[in-house]
Amino acid sequence: LPPIDEGEALAAMRWLSFEPAMRGWMDDRASYLPPVELGAVMRAPGVAEIIESRHPDYAVGDLVQGLFGWQEHVVIRTTGDQPRTMPPGLEPEMAMSVLGGSALTAYFGLLDIGQPRPGETVVVSGAAGAVGSIAGQIAKLKGCRTIGVAGGPEKCAWVVEACGFDACIDYKNDDVAARLRELCPEGVDVYFENVGGAILEAVLDNLAMHARLVMCGMISGYNDTQPGPSNLSRLIAFRGRMQGFILFDYASRMHEGTTALAGWLQEGKLRYRTDVQRGFENVPRTFLRLFSGENQGKQLLKL
Amino acid sequence: LPPIDEGEALAAMRWLSFEPAMRGWMDDRASYLPPVELGAVMRAPGVAEIIESRHPDYAVGDLVQGLFGWQEHVVIRTTGDQPRTMPPGLEPEMAMSVLGGSALTAYFGLLDIGQPRPGETVVVSGAAGAVGSIAGQIAKLKGCRTIGVAGGPEKCAWVVEACGFDACIDYKNDDVAARLRELCPEGVDVYFENVGGAILEAVLDNLAMHARLVMCGMISGYNDTQPGPSNLSRLIAFRGRMQGFILFDYASRMHEGTTALAGWLQEGKLRYRTDVQRGFENVPRTFLRLFSGENQGKQLLKL
Repeated sequence: LPPIDEGEALAAMRWLSFEPAMRGWMDDRASYLPPVELGAVMRAPGVAEIIESRHPDYAVGDLVQGLFGWQEHVVIRTTGDQPRTMPPGLEPEMAMSVLGGSALTAYFGLLDIGQPRPGETVVVSGAAGAVGSIAGQIAKLKGCRTIGVAGGPEKCAWVVEACGFDACIDYKNDDVAARLRELCPEGVDVYFENVGGAILEAVLDNLAMHARLVMCGMISGYNDTQPGPSNLSRLIAFRGRMQGFILFDYASRMHEGTTALAGWLQEGKLRYRTDVQRGFENVPRTFLRLFSGENQGKQLLKL
Repeated sequence: LPPIDEGEALAAMRWLSFEPAMRGWMDDRASYLPPVELGAVMRAPGVAEIIESRHPDYAVGDLVQGLFGWQEHVVIRTTGDQPRTMPPGLEPEMAMSVLGGSALTAYFGLLDIGQPRPGETVVVSGAAGAVGSIAGQIAKLKGCRTIGVAGGPEKCAWVVEACGFDACIDYKNDDVAARLRELCPEGVDVYFENVGGAILEAVLDNLAMHARLVMCGMISGYNDTQPGPSNLSRLIAFRGRMQGFILFDYASRMHEGTTALAGWLQEGKLRYRTDVQRGFENVPRTFLRLFSGENQGKQLLKL
């Protein structure tokens, strides 16, 4: 174990959280965070337990949440980001899913960028994922018709039956463009984008006037370069707005988001599921589950 | 000549105006105007002269402006859109270029969608065109560094020397991506898009944080289906906003736009040029000049 100095604490990683955005952190190009250097610890969010402390703010046994990275132990120093201590009684699985960054991403992206109005049609890709499933449920809570797009009958059934979406298109088995036309006869008012590729193209072909496209992720293109949609000019004819965002932009509004999510959760209005893998040796394999779509809900790994 | 009834007027077309957007009106798909039917007169803006009148609002010799279409004579009825009578002394060429729809499109697109701030970097594609040249000049008037993209040395020279852009990239001879990186070391804050294709891709690779992409036209894709940019996810990392618009949305603000343009024009602050072809038989050929890029400024045809 690494030795600690006065003012430091040592924590053992208990949970790692996985997000598609982490793939972008590995690219060697300017972005919203510096690229992870070759040979450096991969940046990743997680929950750790304090096992030794000479730090004034942490006691042995405390659970702390932060961007600890893919490692088994972490030294918390007095300088730099100080991890948040988790409130007692809050389950780490919940803190990393329905009350965590994925859900807050859904909250701010849908409401702030998407600005859905009651009665509008909202389409969510990656609808069975940690972000998409929450985005769609919030759209329903705001009175929208909500259509998901997900991969496979099991995920689609969960999206409709558990999460209450009005319908879900199975992109692995359905003709997405045809189903979208059927399910959104008045066009798509808000599209919450997690995926890119052919689904984005189909949505662009079916926009409602003044549509808003919330660009949260484009996972289908993270590992391969793929051509973009050939019909971006539909944004002109339909006065569409396609806008990217990053959760960090909402740092000052985290309390608002967490409070809203916790309220809905307590009222039994938010469903979620976590996909828990185990063992440090399975970290890379667990990460790749996001890209194959094997994960069933928020992808976590327990150490 | 077509006979007219009581309440009608007959006008002879004097000028036709050509815009890339007209290409979209020919596509058989839902858009912001109904498609032009096969066999119908092609919809097109122009200026006509009243040659016979039994209509209360028009006198013989009046010049009127409207969506008259590709025809030599037009009957103005009492129902339907009533063409605007042009103020005496206003040159038709000016009314269809620097004070017309192209310039108003530049005005509202740049200012309302692009929201440029002094000191920001604005890139305009189609910079030698009727819309782009005005958009860039307005950006300069608003205190922005302004970079054009145009085809060929003659157009680029006009953009810089006459219109006062800070630089112009020649997409036919330069490496657009490399030149864009050189000329916009802090990234592109506002992109006024007339073209699409590889230029859009290069801009997306060089966004400033919170960039705004004003989607006015994507002419490079109007006659061929071409893949879109493979790097749309840069909108996420850089919180970009890509937004389409149509001049018709600003119907209630036409007076504001025209007043501003006329003011700058009177102060000698707006340069423009028109490319005048002649003869009704040359209508299709004149239209195609927009797509080959042969036109030098606002494309018109005099009858």
